[in-house]
Amino acid sequence: VALRARESPFPLITVEEAVDMVLSEAPVLGVEKVFYKDALGRILAEDVYAKDPLPPFPASIKDGYAVVAADGAGDRIVLGDSTAGSVPKGEVIPGYCIRISTGAPIPKGADAVVQVEDTKLLKDADEGRTELEISLLQAPVIGQDIRPVGFDIKAGEKILAKGIRLGPSELGLAATVGVVKLMCHMFPVVGVLSTGNELVEPEAKLRPGHIRDSNRTTLLAALKEHGFPTVDLGVAKDRPESLLEHLKNALRRTDVIVTSGGVSMGEKDLLKQVLHVDLQAHMHFGRVFMKPGKPTTFATVTIDDTKKLFFGLPGNPVSAIVTCNLYVIPALNKMSGYPNPRRTVIKAKISSDIQLDSRPEYHRVVLSWREDDPVPWASSTGSQISSRLLSMCSANALLMLPPKTKEQKEMKTGDVAEAIVIGRL
Amino acid sequence: VALRARESPFPLITVEEAVDMVLSEAPVLGVEKVFYKDALGRILAEDVYAKDPLPPFPASIKDGYAVVAADGAGDRIVLGDSTAGSVPKGEVIPGYCIRISTGAPIPKGADAVVQVEDTKLLKDADEGRTELEISLLQAPVIGQDIRPVGFDIKAGEKILAKGIRLGPSELGLAATVGVVKLMCHMFPVVGVLSTGNELVEPEAKLRPGHIRDSNRTTLLAALKEHGFPTVDLGVAKDRPESLLEHLKNALRRTDVIVTSGGVSMGEKDLLKQVLHVDLQAHMHFGRVFMKPGKPTTFATVTIDDTKKLFFGLPGNPVSAIVTCNLYVIPALNKMSGYPNPRRTVIKAKISSDIQLDSRPEYHRVVLSWREDDPVPWASSTGSQISSRLLSMCSANALLMLPPKTKEQKEMKTGDVAEAIVIGRL
Ligand SMILES: [Mg+2]
Ligand SMILES: [Mg+2]
Repeated sequence: VALRARESPFPLITVEEAVDMVLSEAPVLGVEKVFYKDALGRILAEDVYAKDPLPPFPASIKDGYAVVAADGAGDRIVLGDSTAGSVPKGEVIPGYCIRISTGAPIPKGADAVVQVEDTKLLKDADEGRTELEISLLQAPVIGQDIRPVGFDIKAGEKILAKGIRLGPSELGLAATVGVVKLMCHMFPVVGVLSTGNELVEPEAKLRPGHIRDSNRTTLLAALKEHGFPTVDLGVAKDRPESLLEHLKNALRRTDVIVTSGGVSMGEKDLLKQVLHVDLQAHMHFGRVFMKPGKPTTFATVTIDDTKKLFFGLPGNPVSAIVTCNLYVIPALNKMSGYPNPRRTVIKAKISSDIQLDSRPEYHRVVLSWREDDPVPWASSTGSQISSRLLSMCSANALLMLPPKTKEQKEMKTGDVAEAIVIGRL
Repeated sequence: VALRARESPFPLITVEEAVDMVLSEAPVLGVEKVFYKDALGRILAEDVYAKDPLPPFPASIKDGYAVVAADGAGDRIVLGDSTAGSVPKGEVIPGYCIRISTGAPIPKGADAVVQVEDTKLLKDADEGRTELEISLLQAPVIGQDIRPVGFDIKAGEKILAKGIRLGPSELGLAATVGVVKLMCHMFPVVGVLSTGNELVEPEAKLRPGHIRDSNRTTLLAALKEHGFPTVDLGVAKDRPESLLEHLKNALRRTDVIVTSGGVSMGEKDLLKQVLHVDLQAHMHFGRVFMKPGKPTTFATVTIDDTKKLFFGLPGNPVSAIVTCNLYVIPALNKMSGYPNPRRTVIKAKISSDIQLDSRPEYHRVVLSWREDDPVPWASSTGSQISSRLLSMCSANALLMLPPKTKEQKEMKTGDVAEAIVIGRL
């Protein structure tokens, strides 16, 4: 214990360097066929083409009458009807028309549709059940209110590009063209482990000297919100054997391991040692110049030709969720196949003066839009000390404050800073 | 058929009026106890208080030594240690110190912690395994690097307020204070039904005159992305008996029914009639002054004292998802207990000139942030004709364009418009 390093042996790197290292190490996972109903949130691994055109037949855009445009305005005899889902019988010839509904096939001979609002009923039969003759109030134009074959999608057209995220509309489009099995990247399976002799389960009785574990709950929920499959790996004790056993189990079951705690300079902070010595992990970084989150650790272990990622997040609840957002989510995005796995950086005005820290600082804020200003305002969610999880409540963004310089020691109300959206707007 | 109305009997109302009607009709659902691991995304229905303080004991913020501050800088004899999860034995007296790790209880007698980086090892034993004496490089200050009892959370403090959405950090906070059963509002169960004789399942062979149903896929996925439980109600034919059977089944199984198609002016658009006549629904609106989405219909049916909501969305794929975002999601938010169920309206600059329509128009756009501009830019995702679902791909916002006036017929590149975020940024 006395021989422990009094300073971390890891060089202090910048957040940008850390993100770059994580992204260059994270592998893009393999592909698999996924049924379209199960593919929400997946990244498409192949271009998708339409097998047939949409519409597959010339279709009416309106409810009205299929007519011959050259006849002009005036009276038409009603021959019958064409409704959606039917194949129209009969042909429209000059002086005649066929009643038609939205989405129904245009009958032979017709070259325009006149919406019902622009017509007048002249003659009916069967107590109003049958229309015999109508009148067009205006002269139609050829092609009017007709969607020609392939107007929306041409046969063979690329409708979804490799690399796109399959959201609701993308899945709808795949359904439209009948591509029900989609080649997608696999999702990484992420295990979450807490470490610390002081931790008890939230549902357990609090014993002297102990606190309840909150990081697993927060991290598992954050990963689930992003759609990633998770495994709850429990709590490891601050003993090399306990850590090793939990990590070995995790390596069998997951692609990515996220731990919290055990990465500081304390004698019980054994994670880095277990990773490096026992698991022969490649230690990429162990300290980042940021606040909170300085002891964030990133390592990789290759087992049976498969690279597993290890994120050792600090034990502080706020540090853990901040560094999860900054490092873990982009890594999972890349593994899932996102062409651009980085977090989207937006801009916001700060709503109170902030003293800058010597380190780049990540402030939990709530974004809101004011009537008279196109730029969102970022309000701090309270005390920013890293153990105060309370300050994360309702935060939907992480404000990225630059480190203080000789020229700039604080930021003033209304100054613009960068931010990452981490929750619902 | 001849007697059908040639104009809709429903008054044309504004989008604002329609949203107000929907929100005033949507009931806030009841409450139930939810285990914290299952409560992600729920709205809390009661205030949550801490049962005990955090930390429950004075705790060290650093890895270092617990000391008596009045002793000043200089040498200390190491008495033993206090690690996280243990109850420290012994007492710190002047001239002595106890080694301490982050989160560990402060031993009796100590009133400050000095981090290991600010100390020097003087004497050790057992080949470096035991520290005997150290030196503090600087004089400590009373209370330094100690989190007193209740520093983060006081016993009895309100830690989560009624009405908050339970996101990752909120659940972590509930775990911290050991509140593992949370009184939450119920989620509405939403059924999605497509209507139309022309529709076949995406996995079925395309028959003449038919198209594949895409709206159910899109709407179900959009509702799932918002976290709501969904029921796939299938496809109803354009026949009153088929519609009635599907709707009756839906009323038994769901709180909210979302249909697409069957609300236009065609003779096969029977939904409004079935709702009004057969189900004695209260028809709140049947036309909205907007593009796309004009025939959007909203009704309520009360069965056994329970009010069920019915949204008849237009059959056009883009109209359906636009109106789902504008009307259905806020209603579901309100039913789930959100104090402010409305969509967040942000501001964006348009990235090409746009001719305004006579109706307020909703344009599918992708938001992006440029290096030199704090306001996001909104790029149109292509052709905006409402049947082109293609234009929704990758769209993450709905630009809300005002109707054209004598003074303003178009908007120019760089003009600021309002937008609703509907996808990932
Ligand atoms: Mg620890
Ligand atoms: Mg229809």
